[in-house]
Order: sequence, then structure tokens, then C-alpha cells
Amino acid sequence: MSKLIDSTPRADGFRMPGEFEPHRQIWMLWPQRPDNWRLGGKPAQRAWVDVASAISRFEPVTVGVNHDQYENAVNMLPGSVRVVEISNNDSWMRDCGPSFVVNDKGDVRLVDWGFNAWGGLYDGLYFPWDKDDLVAQKVAQIEQVDRYKAPLIMEGGSFHVDGEGTVLTTEECLLSPGRNPDLTREQIEEHLRDYLNVEKVIWLGKGIDPDETNGHVDDVACFVRPGVVMAAVTDDKDDWRYELLQDNLRRLRETTDAKGRKLEVITLPMPAILEITEDEAWGIDSAEGTIPRRPGDKTAASYLNFLIVNGGIILPTFDDPYDNPARGIVAGAFPDREVVTVPGREIVLGGGNVHCITQQQPRG
Amino acid sequence: MSKLIDSTPRADGFRMPGEFEPHRQIWMLWPQRPDNWRLGGKPAQRAWVDVASAISRFEPVTVGVNHDQYENAVNMLPGSVRVVEISNNDSWMRDCGPSFVVNDKGDVRLVDWGFNAWGGLYDGLYFPWDKDDLVAQKVAQIEQVDRYKAPLIMEGGSFHVDGEGTVLTTEECLLSPGRNPDLTREQIEEHLRDYLNVEKVIWLGKGIDPDETNGHVDDVACFVRPGVVMAAVTDDKDDWRYELLQDNLRRLRETTDAKGRKLEVITLPMPAILEITEDEAWGIDSAEGTIPRRPGDKTAASYLNFLIVNGGIILPTFDDPYDNPARGIVAGAFPDREVVTVPGREIVLGGGNVHCITQQQPRG
Repeated sequence: MSKLIDSTPRADGFRMPGEFEPHRQIWMLWPQRPDNWRLGGKPAQRAWVDVASAISRFEPVTVGVNHDQYENAVNMLPGSVRVVEISNNDSWMRDCGPSFVVNDKGDVRLVDWGFNAWGGLYDGLYFPWDKDDLVAQKVAQIEQVDRYKAPLIMEGGSFHVDGEGTVLTTEECLLSPGRNPDLTREQIEEHLRDYLNVEKVIWLGKGIDPDETNGHVDDVACFVRPGVVMAAVTDDKDDWRYELLQDNLRRLRETTDAKGRKLEVITLPMPAILEITEDEAWGIDSAEGTIPRRPGDKTAASYLNFLIVNGGIILPTFDDPYDNPARGIVAGAFPDREVVTVPGREIVLGGGNVHCITQQQPRG
Repeated sequence: MSKLIDSTPRADGFRMPGEFEPHRQIWMLWPQRPDNWRLGGKPAQRAWVDVASAISRFEPVTVGVNHDQYENAVNMLPGSVRVVEISNNDSWMRDCGPSFVVNDKGDVRLVDWGFNAWGGLYDGLYFPWDKDDLVAQKVAQIEQVDRYKAPLIMEGGSFHVDGEGTVLTTEECLLSPGRNPDLTREQIEEHLRDYLNVEKVIWLGKGIDPDETNGHVDDVACFVRPGVVMAAVTDDKDDWRYELLQDNLRRLRETTDAKGRKLEVITLPMPAILEITEDEAWGIDSAEGTIPRRPGDKTAASYLNFLIVNGGIILPTFDDPYDNPARGIVAGAFPDREVVTVPGREIVLGGGNVHCITQQQPRG
């Protein structure tokens, strides 16, 4: 049974666990739309197989797929991956999918946010997004977990929680006119408190992709564990991102979390700005209502977009001189986890990376 | 993990249990196609809700549904029913879905038969049937059970097993030129032995719907328990079905099962022949490649198309004088089960009944 619960996680004693807490499985969606993924989505699908295979070394994976790609997904993915039919408009499970919450008894429920393709009719990335918006409900039904319907537009990549009462997010995204223009900052904070069961909202300023997700936090900062955050930085003062990343760093160093702790901040370098090549751009369908991808467009490549799994870290790399230093910093921050790298370029061509295409279901 | 196993249930020590053995759940598919179900499928959907609700009193139910009917199915069905996305061409889970097999250790696998809409290009009922043919694989993936792919066209409604080595089927269907024209009767028997793990095939002659399923056995006979069968009969010698039902009865009384037992045969009356009315026919879409449903067409109404569930029987009734006698006979044959009746007319307008729209997954 999957009930729609007319209440809030906070009222019922449920909280969203940190990503570093134990998982039952990871959810993904299979990529295919030819106006976002080049060459009919085939290179992206190979990248998804790499990511799903890497995660499968640590915990179970379920991949949702449209009917017309069902057989192909089953045949391309390793046999250990569960493939289920979940119609979708694109493959960003982190953003269109659910956020799971747990209580102290080990019960698991999920929060079903509104989804409008990162900005709806204001500055969304495609139209329509009707299938994406049903993904959370379908996950709830497959898993038979009860569901909260949150009264706001929200993507999983726009926040991180520490599982102990703190949420990390950006003003650029959550206060964007394309999300919840009728809600004040205070009302949005109130919804975060109710649906994630947190006490403290730490507001960063901006992310690194204003035109796509409007600055999702999951490209620029995350929790390593309660009291410890990792933040992306660049040493290059000519990089347009330098100042916004420094601003985020200052905010993190000046704030405290819900428990009153000063945050320990670990900095992580950025790869060089990665541009879409002519060869990578020509095989993308041109379509009305979808943001075009052209040669020379800058992508939002970031090491910070890694995924924490049970006993591991799935880290995107970019054939960049910073790949090894970044790997070393992540390994140092997570000494009990094995860092597995996956090629991140193909995924970032579509607008995100490992974290954006996954969602953890806690063990409960 | 759901593996495709290159072997047979017989070779691996798996057998298909009788329907009267304990179930884990019942699978169904949601009806919607407007060229088979009148008035956009809405009356049929109400009938499905009745059946799913009745079954839910006894055991869990999962209903597979096309994306475009997902929200409607969730909202119409009781909250206790699990709804999952499974694209389908029509809603006959018994026939396009899997047959589950178990071993002595409690492991469960399934057999994925070929499906060609009851006769393919020879005399099938619609085209295409590509979505139906993937249903068994999708069920295997959702449930994470391993799968055998059987090398023949076969519908679940065309046979019944006693779980102890005997299968009951009809010559009219299994030897039909629309199924497996390149296989001899002996080769078909061999496949039944391999994939159901049976020793003895009991061949009845014909069923009551030559133009639809080519005489599925599940309208005319079933196992009550090992050694006991129920067989449909009519007293009306002018009924065109009289002689074929008598022929089946003779065959059942003359044969033995895999254990060498003479069969006890319980007879069950037929309802009067039920014709589609003008009012029931006008709201069905006319479509190329789909068998038309016209006023005056005779349906295959039969009480025998009931479903056995844990502790219960779901029995279709037809506002017919034989409803009560039939119910009494079924109750007498299954003294430990509660007989719950559901209106069968709307379902039979589309070509089958309760048994045709359900498939049991054994407990294992």
C-alpha cells in the first residue's frame, strides 16, 4: 500500500537522512531524448551504464525507463540492475524524483515535490514535463511507501541535508522566479522545515549554471558528514565563477548548523571550464521549446557532483589536470569509502552529472 | 537481479503450482483500448475495480497500467492495490503475462511465453501486440525473479495445472494454426513437460469461443485440487456448445492424471448465451485490425472463468437464473474458501472474465 499522506514529515516525526547514511538502493532514469543527448542518446546511455555499474559494486540500482527503450536498457545495463518502466521526459532522477524520509522506527516514506523542468514557462529547459512530475508517485507505488505531496516546486539537486536538522541550498535557485514566485523566502524556509524536518536553512548565493538549473547547490557544495561540508573553489581569479564560489565559501565559514556547530569546510578544485565541441553538438536534435546545445557552450562540469553510496563515492572526472588532486581530496574526506571514478564528460554535455542522475533510497 | 535462464524449469527442478496453492499476490492489467472496451473503457475500468477490490480482501494485488491511464487507475483503484507502469496493448494479464514456477526450496521464477494476440497474423484479435509481449519480462524485473523464455506461443488461459504433474488443455487452441504451426502435437507436449514440469497432458477438445481465444480451457474446465476437476456443461441440447462440453466431460471421465488417479469430475452449469446489445456495442471504436464487436454477437460467458485466491473464489455472475446454483456448486467444491461474486457482464463484453484478467504469483 502506498498512501498519500495529508500531513508533513515534520509533524509525523520523519526526516530526510544525509546522503552518507546507509542506503537501500539508488534510483536512476534512462536517458534518450534526442534534443538533449547527442546521437540518439547512445553515448549518454553508455555513460549511464558506467555509472550504474559503478554503483552496483556497492548497492542495488533500479533504473526507470520509457517503454520504447525498455529492451535496450535491459540489454545494455548489467544483469544486477533492476529495470522498471517509468515514463519520463528526461533522465534527471535527482531533480524530478522523490526525496525519501525516515523515522526512528525504520519506516520509510517519500516527499513528492512539484517539478517544472527547472523553471516552468519562465525559464524551464523543456516542455512538457508531465511524465517527470509523476516519477515520484510511481516510485512510491513500486516500493509501496507512503507519500507526502509538497506544495512547492523543488528539485532534489537544489538542496543537501546533514540529517541532523540542517539544509544547504542556494538563493539563486530556490528564490528563482521560475519556481515558487508566490512564496516568500520565509514561506519557502517553512516548507523546507516541514518537508525535510530541518531547523536551519543555510543559504548559499549562486551555483555555476544560471541558465540551466539556476544554480543547484549540488555542483558547488555538499555535506561530508554532520558538521563538515565540501565546497567547490577555483584559484583562477579570471574565471567568472571565482567570486561566487568565494562568496559561498565565506557564507559557509561564517555560519553554524542546526546543532550550533561551526562548519569544517573542505575545498575542492574545479576542472577547467569544459566547452561543447562541434563534434559533440552536431548530433543533437534541434527542437522548439528545448534549450539548444551549441558548439562553444560552457558546461557545468564539477567534481562536487559526486554521489555517496554505501562504502563508496562515485566521482565524475574530465580528463583534466585536477582529476587526480580532486580524487585525493575526496578520498581524504571520506576515508572509509572507496572512490570510484567514472567519465563525466558525456553526462555534463546534457547538463548535469553523477549526482543529478541518481537518487538514494535510505535503508530505514 | 532478474536473469534470463537458458534452461527449463523441468531441468532445474521448478514446477508450476496449482492455482489453489498459496499466492503471494495477483497481477492484473488496466483496460483502456477503445476498440475493445466501450465508452472509452470506463465501464470496464469500474468492473476491474470491482475485481481488484474483491481480490484485495484475500491477498495483495498489483495492477500494471499504461502511462496515460496511470493517474486515473491510481485514483479509481482502492489504496491497497499497488499500481505500476507496464505498457500493454490490452488488459488480459492471464494470457500475455507470465506463468510462475517454484522449487522445493521456495525459490520463484517465471516462464515468459511468446504472445501473438491469440493467433497472430492468422486469426489474432489485434495488431500489434508488442507491448503485451514484454509484460512477463517487466513483471520479472519488478519482482526480481529469474525468467525462462519458452520457445512457443502460449497463453496462460489455455491451460491449467494440478501442481502434481498434470496439465489440462484443449486441442482447438494449442493445435491452432495461429499459434505454433511448425510444432507437432508431440513437440508441444514436450515443451509443456519442460516448461510446466508436468508428466501428463490431458487434451480436451474445444472451448466455447472459437473466434476469440480459439477455445481456451479456462472457460470450460479447471482443477479444484489434485484429482478433482470442474467442467462446464449445459442441459440444453439445442445449445451449440452442448456436444463439445459433453465431449470434454467424456474425456475427463475416461482419463487418468499424472499420478494415475481417475479424476473426480464436478459439473458446473453455463449461463444462458449472453449477446451484446445495441446499447453495449455503439460505444466501441471501429478500428482496422481489431475484431469488431457488434450487436447480437455472442459472448463467452462462463462461470468456470473464476479465480482461486487465498481463502476465496472470485466468481463472475451474469444476472442469470443459474447464478445461484453455480455459486452453490463452486462453494461446495471449495468448502474452505469464501465465494465472492462480481458482475461479469462488462468483462465478458471484451472477450473474457475474471480468470482471463488475472495471474497468480505463488508464495514460494
